[in-house]
Amino acid sequence: MTWNTNLRWRLPLLCLVLEVAMVVLFGLFVRYPDADSSWSNEKRKGNITSDLENEFYYRYPSFQDVHVMVFLGFGFLMTFLQRYGYCALGFNFLLAALGVQWALLMQGWFQYTKDRLILLGIKNLIDADSCVASVCVAFGAVLGKVSPIQMLLMTFFQVALFSANEFLLLHVLEVKDAGGSITIHIFGAYFGLTVTWILYRHNLDHSRERQSSVYHSNLFAMIGTLFLWIYWPSFNSAMSNYGDAQHRAAINTYCSLAASVLTSVAMSSVLHKKGKLDMVHIQNATLAGGVGVGTAAEMMLMPYGALIVGFICGAVSTLGFVYLTPFLESRLRIQDTCGIHNLHGIPGLIGAIVGAVTAAYASPDGDRGFVYPFGFHNEKDEKVQGRFQAFGLLLTLAIAMVGGTIMGLILKLPFWGQAMDEDCFDDSIYWEMHEEKSSSPEDHTHKPSVPTEPVEQPTSSATLAP
Amino acid sequence: MTWNTNLRWRLPLLCLVLEVAMVVLFGLFVRYPDADSSWSNEKRKGNITSDLENEFYYRYPSFQDVHVMVFLGFGFLMTFLQRYGYCALGFNFLLAALGVQWALLMQGWFQYTKDRLILLGIKNLIDADSCVASVCVAFGAVLGKVSPIQMLLMTFFQVALFSANEFLLLHVLEVKDAGGSITIHIFGAYFGLTVTWILYRHNLDHSRERQSSVYHSNLFAMIGTLFLWIYWPSFNSAMSNYGDAQHRAAINTYCSLAASVLTSVAMSSVLHKKGKLDMVHIQNATLAGGVGVGTAAEMMLMPYGALIVGFICGAVSTLGFVYLTPFLESRLRIQDTCGIHNLHGIPGLIGAIVGAVTAAYASPDGDRGFVYPFGFHNEKDEKVQGRFQAFGLLLTLAIAMVGGTIMGLILKLPFWGQAMDEDCFDDSIYWEMHEEKSSSPEDHTHKPSVPTEPVEQPTSSATLAP
Amino acid sequence: MTWNTNLRWRLPLLCLVLEVAMVVLFGLFVRYPDADSSWSNEKRKGNITSDLENEFYYRYPSFQDVHVMVFLGFGFLMTFLQRYGYCALGFNFLLAALGVQWALLMQGWFQYTKDRLILLGIKNLIDADSCVASVCVAFGAVLGKVSPIQMLLMTFFQVALFSANEFLLLHVLEVKDAGGSITIHIFGAYFGLTVTWILYRHNLDHSRERQSSVYHSNLFAMIGTLFLWIYWPSFNSAMSNYGDAQHRAAINTYCSLAASVLTSVAMSSVLHKKGKLDMVHIQNATLAGGVGVGTAAEMMLMPYGALIVGFICGAVSTLGFVYLTPFLESRLRIQDTCGIHNLHGIPGLIGAIVGAVTAAYASPDGDRGFVYPFGFHNEKDEKVQGRFQAFGLLLTLAIAMVGGTIMGLILKLPFWGQAMDEDCFDDSIYWEMHEEKSSSPEDHTHKPSVPTEPVEQPTSSATLAP
Repeated sequence: MTWNTNLRWRLPLLCLVLEVAMVVLFGLFVRYPDADSSWSNEKRKGNITSDLENEFYYRYPSFQDVHVMVFLGFGFLMTFLQRYGYCALGFNFLLAALGVQWALLMQGWFQYTKDRLILLGIKNLIDADSCVASVCVAFGAVLGKVSPIQMLLMTFFQVALFSANEFLLLHVLEVKDAGGSITIHIFGAYFGLTVTWILYRHNLDHSRERQSSVYHSNLFAMIGTLFLWIYWPSFNSAMSNYGDAQHRAAINTYCSLAASVLTSVAMSSVLHKKGKLDMVHIQNATLAGGVGVGTAAEMMLMPYGALIVGFICGAVSTLGFVYLTPFLESRLRIQDTCGIHNLHGIPGLIGAIVGAVTAAYASPDGDRGFVYPFGFHNEKDEKVQGRFQAFGLLLTLAIAMVGGTIMGLILKLPFWGQAMDEDCFDDSIYWEMHEEKSSSPEDHTHKPSVPTEPVEQPTSSATLAP
Repeated sequence: MTWNTNLRWRLPLLCLVLEVAMVVLFGLFVRYPDADSSWSNEKRKGNITSDLENEFYYRYPSFQDVHVMVFLGFGFLMTFLQRYGYCALGFNFLLAALGVQWALLMQGWFQYTKDRLILLGIKNLIDADSCVASVCVAFGAVLGKVSPIQMLLMTFFQVALFSANEFLLLHVLEVKDAGGSITIHIFGAYFGLTVTWILYRHNLDHSRERQSSVYHSNLFAMIGTLFLWIYWPSFNSAMSNYGDAQHRAAINTYCSLAASVLTSVAMSSVLHKKGKLDMVHIQNATLAGGVGVGTAAEMMLMPYGALIVGFICGAVSTLGFVYLTPFLESRLRIQDTCGIHNLHGIPGLIGAIVGAVTAAYASPDGDRGFVYPFGFHNEKDEKVQGRFQAFGLLLTLAIAMVGGTIMGLILKLPFWGQAMDEDCFDDSIYWEMHEEKSSSPEDHTHKPSVPTEPVEQPTSSATLAP
Repeated sequence: MTWNTNLRWRLPLLCLVLEVAMVVLFGLFVRYPDADSSWSNEKRKGNITSDLENEFYYRYPSFQDVHVMVFLGFGFLMTFLQRYGYCALGFNFLLAALGVQWALLMQGWFQYTKDRLILLGIKNLIDADSCVASVCVAFGAVLGKVSPIQMLLMTFFQVALFSANEFLLLHVLEVKDAGGSITIHIFGAYFGLTVTWILYRHNLDHSRERQSSVYHSNLFAMIGTLFLWIYWPSFNSAMSNYGDAQHRAAINTYCSLAASVLTSVAMSSVLHKKGKLDMVHIQNATLAGGVGVGTAAEMMLMPYGALIVGFICGAVSTLGFVYLTPFLESRLRIQDTCGIHNLHGIPGLIGAIVGAVTAAYASPDGDRGFVYPFGFHNEKDEKVQGRFQAFGLLLTLAIAMVGGTIMGLILKLPFWGQAMDEDCFDDSIYWEMHEEKSSSPEDHTHKPSVPTEPVEQPTSSATLAP
């Protein structure tokens, strides 16, 4: 059986239907706030009101950093495959652009509705970007094996489920999760892993050669890694309360990330026969500290606490790439292209546990010693808060896996334009390759004919080789 | 006839003369504000003055985003050509560096002079960057066909004309144009298109092979695309009034850009025989939403209005790349290298019309219903404002085309170091290529000899091919 | 004799020992400030306190810009070598991650200790990043010739020495050095140059072919250049006092950088036989204006003064690349891989002199004319301040050279995993190259075998050539 990867009518139709739906729903439900606006900052003491106190000025820089992470960071991180950069960047761009619109609606309905209207502000934009980050995480598990149609469907479904789960955790259970270790990373990772488990492909060996990187693709991927690493303190602090909480979240994340670079390098070298470093680990495990410190970011974790979290996450994540990913693939039939289980799954679990412990051992007045004093004031007993954190984690795992199963079964249907096993990880399935004239002579090209340059084309040169 | 592309004396001389002129003019005209400074924010109510209310803190983050767009965004966007990345980045860097200095003076003389002195502040820097963005747009039309000398001349002339046009529109006609759909994009696009029309080259087919992209050049270009896309909300909101206007401009641009990604993908796929996507469209048309929402960015366009604008711009822009660009080249002899007509010209026109309509149907008290209530307060009748917007558009078109004609005729003179038709789109005309030792054996190189590596060189390998 | 470059036990052990030391020292010495916090801004007049006045909001955007420069800017700037991108990015990442942790402690002990505790805030993070920038500068001199172990040792030693020198200058001598021309650039450059002088390698000609760039590596390097150039105004203004000083520092740097682009291009062209431009100059000399304006950034240098500084620095720096670097290598046996003497050394000296002159000719009331009025108020006589500036420069040179000598002698010991002369500038010494299967058949790889693609590999293709 051959699947049809010609998306000429299916993809445009789906895009247009979704975008028209967004326009209609925005028209019905989304407004700016009134003049006596929620955009001005009411917390400000002394009743001094001015345009300078608009929330915009306190959230916008963080928002832009998060925006870079979602659209450029995740996109370039996934360009490490030698012949899948167009798809990595293009599909990530497409899913994120749909995702933010849909997230503004879904999160708006769950959290921000006033008189049946969603009043849009900078905070909603940050929330929407964070939600989409969770879809980008899941995309990493199925990268190379799905069509853009499947990604649009997955985005639509996952954003809705994310918003429901986030609402349950943050507003019903009152779980604290500043940097989204649970709501973003664990949810995204286990949703994506379940989907790729259902979509298991038997004959991926046929495209094995394209599943590794080449020299330049690794440099492109480092653009993604570095922007994610650099802006992660903004990611973990963007949604925190003004002032000390936000300040603390940035510092904790900065410390944790720095520590995970050193342990990633250490483990990468010690696990190689000749002590050589592996770009895969540098690109991914160095970021694990940011995931691991997510839940506790705004808490009184203390700088050394953050270092310890980063220390553990960097090491465990690298171990995961070396031992766990091959095991998951061969034994559990989970094909995790980018190793999201090592970057988001395990460090997310560590982060959730750190958050629960920090919350449980916290005390509002700080007299429980310097170990993990409480950073926020809450009426519940701190032990209860710890238990709620743990319960939120379990609930998220359950929702992600059940949702991922349903999603996987839907995406398994044969008419979404997915590629054959031997065509996976290849841009040319979904992209016009202007330079590869010879391989698609009858295509409709708008540029004049270009002589083939096989030397620039890893895959074509590989296929040309005897 | 052969043109002389050796710039050894002409380029350095021009650079030094221009820079010395800048030093002298800055010495005569440019100062910092006094201590009782325009840098502190006088709008602040309650007469509380503090260093924290310095304009710097409210404008600087937006400024840096715009700075990234101009110097890195436009530069990398134009690296899509397989063998013209040095020129794209280097010339864009050069023209922008001259442009901002000259724009500080020109815009200063037109708009910011006090006692014959220009008092420099963060707002001037943003204004200068925006002005240069218009030159970067025009550069896109002539990319690959002009010498750095021509670009310096064009920058000098275009910045001056831009400043005059901007002054006429914003201060004489009181046109609203927050994101510069008219003053930046339409002006830049039609100026550049007129120049390239005058500079028409008959035998560009000889360098056709270099006019397309290769795999890596498309990934480099995506760096430019993504940074432009991500920071566009800052671009459209950077110059708006403090508070709600700026907040609204960022949200409108965010929404519009997201919508244009989906319609760009849809049209790209439907216009290809096999439904494949084209990187050219993803790199460019996805940005059209930012252009289209420029004029109306700070108005009460409403989020769904912004989505509609982005929807239309993304689709129209992609259609332009497929049908209009080839038509312009074959029939009107307009060789538009980057397709700026599709990214800046048409979306700019849409943006100007949207702005005029929004302004015309606006009402200060908002009782014209929720369709397009007015976001700013103006003493003129709103219909009049709409007509002024339309008149500003026509005036800009006229000035851009007349100016572009004059500029084109000057640049047509044969002693500016331009390349022969068959040498266009080739970095090696203006750049020392250390690796291509064999092709320029007698060059003055400061690095030791390097073995030629033809496999890394698209063009050299192409020319080596039988 | 063959050195052992297998780092399997040495590198991991060193990383882990250092990171454990950081955890312990942070646990003993580093805390957040109390609730009546140094994080809130006490300068604020009117006794209005609010979370919105947290220092975070006034420093964080600058911090993120500096963060990008250190981790991404310097990293990518050094990817210009054709086959050393992994090391450039990876080692820069590693040294910076260790460096910031260690700098938080060292600078904390010297400058920020209260009751034997270091109270961490956003300002410390900026300070730590600036300190590490100095290590990144020194790394540029030894790039390609050192092992990651050597870089970790050098980072550890240099950060400590930097902190001592910085304390002496800024707090004992009360030298003004807003952008760090002296403390960061001169210190880093002459420290690094002394180290590379001690580590002189006789037979680097064996790896000459890898010491030049290829087409794509130059484009990657431009990512670094542009981000450094764009964010340099943040670098020079990040640590200044609130308000006008910060505003002025950003404007001065913006002007200076713009001027140095034009003179770099001019000199690059005039020094080439055929008037061609050289990417090395565009990548480096364009940044010299930012270094040169460092010390005087916050002073009343005036915009035209900044242009003059940039004018000179861009020209001198380009001249240095053409004439001085070859001279230093052949006569003084200083092998300066990235030419840091031209980008940081000489422009740093210019910057220090400009700062001393500006301070000496300054007058608090500005009646010394418009030449170089004083921007800050100081109780010392301005002539004295000028002399202190000059003395600070000499002291820094002495400390850097003595420290560099000691460091070089330590790094000369043969057991740090450094490569043989003929293996320098090659990633494959320290990195697993998945694609080069044939050259390392028995390596422990976790990915399935990949067919070799020699056409993508500059070095392998070079060695395959007859």
